[in-house]
Amino acid sequence: MNLIIEQGNTYTKVAVYGKESFVTSFVYKKFDIIVVADLMKEFSFTNGILSTVINKDETLINFLEDYLDFFLVLDETTPLPIQVRYDTPGTLGKDRVAAAVGAHFLQPGKDLLVIDAGTAITYEVIEAPGIYIGGNISPGMTTRFKALNHFTEKLPLVVEKEEISFIGHSTETAIQAGVVNGIIYEMEGYINDLRLKYPDLLVFLTGGHSFYFERRLKNSIFADINLVMTGLNRILEYNVEN
Amino acid sequence: MNLIIEQGNTYTKVAVYGKESFVTSFVYKKFDIIVVADLMKEFSFTNGILSTVINKDETLINFLEDYLDFFLVLDETTPLPIQVRYDTPGTLGKDRVAAAVGAHFLQPGKDLLVIDAGTAITYEVIEAPGIYIGGNISPGMTTRFKALNHFTEKLPLVVEKEEISFIGHSTETAIQAGVVNGIIYEMEGYINDLRLKYPDLLVFLTGGHSFYFERRLKNSIFADINLVMTGLNRILEYNVEN
Repeated sequence: MNLIIEQGNTYTKVAVYGKESFVTSFVYKKFDIIVVADLMKEFSFTNGILSTVINKDETLINFLEDYLDFFLVLDETTPLPIQVRYDTPGTLGKDRVAAAVGAHFLQPGKDLLVIDAGTAITYEVIEAPGIYIGGNISPGMTTRFKALNHFTEKLPLVVEKEEISFIGHSTETAIQAGVVNGIIYEMEGYINDLRLKYPDLLVFLTGGHSFYFERRLKNSIFADINLVMTGLNRILEYNVEN
Repeated sequence: MNLIIEQGNTYTKVAVYGKESFVTSFVYKKFDIIVVADLMKEFSFTNGILSTVINKDETLINFLEDYLDFFLVLDETTPLPIQVRYDTPGTLGKDRVAAAVGAHFLQPGKDLLVIDAGTAITYEVIEAPGIYIGGNISPGMTTRFKALNHFTEKLPLVVEKEEISFIGHSTETAIQAGVVNGIIYEMEGYINDLRLKYPDLLVFLTGGHSFYFERRLKNSIFADINLVMTGLNRILEYNVEN
């Protein structure tokens, strides 16, 4: 079995895969060697991959190297099943690469936009032959709410609501409508502009807020919460094979 | 002469007006009674108005009340030349009210959208008879750059550039393109959606980043850096008259 670990800014996600089939997944606020040891009691892992956007935990990495037959820490030197065109591969977020690989694995031969709505919102463009041509980064929904409170003197901290008006009628609804509608305009804007260049563009939406935005977008998209995990598993299999 | 003071989150702006004509303006990082005393040596003010989105400086207010014939601190009880429909007038930013008044004064009888691009980006909708019907708030450009750095572990602090690509090819250009293009999609989104309801909508763009975004918007807009000041002067004159 494959052990897939993705450390994000807020949470660590763990997924368990058979060769190419998803088995189960977990989310941890605190993730360390003890958690991994517990997982190993439950599943018989042979291969593993770690992707992190935060600083590497060397103790954890040494442990995984010792106990797995094949273990990979995703970095800019890792061979990938897509071609990455980026000026600074060392600072290209591993979650962004993995999401691009996952989308191309699920829809090979299609021009793709992958939107990952988490702490940051990332936009990745992958052309049909499997060429990652670049992407954009903007603040995520929660980050925008926090920023309005943190970087101004008087605005309160608000959270998203299920019902969002078009125009706010109080400070709270003005911020809720402003942040949520702004993100929707941003997502729709990329989709519409990219469709001018790629008429058959397919759009994947992943990340913690994917379902929140899925039902608010006019454009048809695939919401897939496991896209990064699918990509990491694909990168792992690709490297085991080669 | 009229002394117009607007305290924002980052700077204090001062404008000097004749009855309805702009004379000059200043911007201060630090603004206190000493600055005001210096201004009074240079200009013979009779009336004044203060609008603040930060906490009130009572020493400054007492000084202005003593030295001017007519002095007004803008709050939710101040009579206005437009009608404000808002559930929480006490927390409606004074700069937002003033920008709405300024726009309606310059284009009476028109449906208006006022975009103020500063620390926050505010959107205000004013219907033709002078009715403020609400507005939205989202993080400003600099706030978005700061938020990506502050609320994530690995993203750097970047600043806007004159040349922005559609899609980034490095972490820095991904953030620059992501933040700037996101704001443009947001502004265009509001303009396009509001034009469905108000076909003759006029759009004002004000605030520190108005010129940065003016030349990047497809829609035709009025960029007016003094819109809040124009509105505050109008509110002052309206209250002197009545």
